[in-house]
Amino acid sequence: MKLQIAVDIADTKEVMQIASEIHDVIDIFEVGTPVIMKEGLSPVKALKEKYPDLCVLADTKIMDGGSIECGDACEAGADIVTVLAVSDNATIREVCETAHKYHRKVMADLICIEDIETRAKKLLKIGVDLIGIHTGVDMQKEGRSPLKELSLLSSKIESSLITVAGGIKINTVDEYIAFHPGVVIAGGALCNAENIRQAVLEMKGRFNHGN
Amino acid sequence: MKLQIAVDIADTKEVMQIASEIHDVIDIFEVGTPVIMKEGLSPVKALKEKYPDLCVLADTKIMDGGSIECGDACEAGADIVTVLAVSDNATIREVCETAHKYHRKVMADLICIEDIETRAKKLLKIGVDLIGIHTGVDMQKEGRSPLKELSLLSSKIESSLITVAGGIKINTVDEYIAFHPGVVIAGGALCNAENIRQAVLEMKGRFNHGN
Repeated sequence: MKLQIAVDIADTKEVMQIASEIHDVIDIFEVGTPVIMKEGLSPVKALKEKYPDLCVLADTKIMDGGSIECGDACEAGADIVTVLAVSDNATIREVCETAHKYHRKVMADLICIEDIETRAKKLLKIGVDLIGIHTGVDMQKEGRSPLKELSLLSSKIESSLITVAGGIKINTVDEYIAFHPGVVIAGGALCNAENIRQAVLEMKGRFNHGN
Repeated sequence: MKLQIAVDIADTKEVMQIASEIHDVIDIFEVGTPVIMKEGLSPVKALKEKYPDLCVLADTKIMDGGSIECGDACEAGADIVTVLAVSDNATIREVCETAHKYHRKVMADLICIEDIETRAKKLLKIGVDLIGIHTGVDMQKEGRSPLKELSLLSSKIESSLITVAGGIKINTVDEYIAFHPGVVIAGGALCNAENIRQAVLEMKGRFNHGN
């Protein structure tokens, strides 16, 4: 099980500051969609230049223009690129083909997919490497969580291919660990901690405890 | 009827170059998703600083984090912000509330929506200003076009609220004009022309001819 930090509200300077604190203890460093929208792919490039061994996920949420957008993210150095599962199969295919040409991975984000089992199986067939269960921040405000979907999907596909995100905190992480997803993603729970490094270590400690 | 140019494959310098050629003759200047992904919102800011009266659409394709992402686009100066119609109603709501606070408009992109009539009506109820019929580039490669959806939707909602995009060329634009959408969007047909200004004027000439 890996821990991914989602850094959503930051500029490149803050991204680099957070990375300096945790690059040696975090498994995957996510440059969040709001960061990319504001600053483009430059934080991804900066991260990979300073920490070439750090696994960086660019949360590009590609919806169209699969080869161009994925190609740009790979050129910037992203190890994992995200595509929206709601996008057309033609786009999913282009993203997979492009990422794999660069020997990078594709995570398809199931956000707003209703029949997650059918879609996840189709995505894996097309060539997606990781399946992301995701309750968006706007949905979290309505009290929704990704736990039920994780519980469903982890019995339907290989659980190590599943990543899970959506308001996971230190006091709820055990419920997710129980289903053995490949990646647990935490954003605010880590980024808003007084000591981010300590928060990362504490959450990773729960993993070892849980397994 | 308005003409929108979609500038998808460019850096800020090229965006500014294209704008210098057409800012006084184009109705809406779209900074495309691949540009935003690569460079962030800085081309939007640069355009509005140099041409404050130019109507700029930031093709942000928001899927989550409605208030943050839309707020950033509005702060950068975008007159129109896009949200994906496939996103959760909570996200659509946040985008609309945020954009309207800034007195900006929201275009919801129907890409990958199956029942476009039901969704378009719901989007308008939530507060979306413009409904975008859109055949993505990856789908265009499979021979699909937005004409059938335009034909359907233009009889179901006020056609002036509809924008239409997806491989529209000078030799096919008349078919779209016939349905009187509020905005016709062209990308490659204008951006790849030898003389972009002339291509814009030629397409706008078809509008007057068609109406």
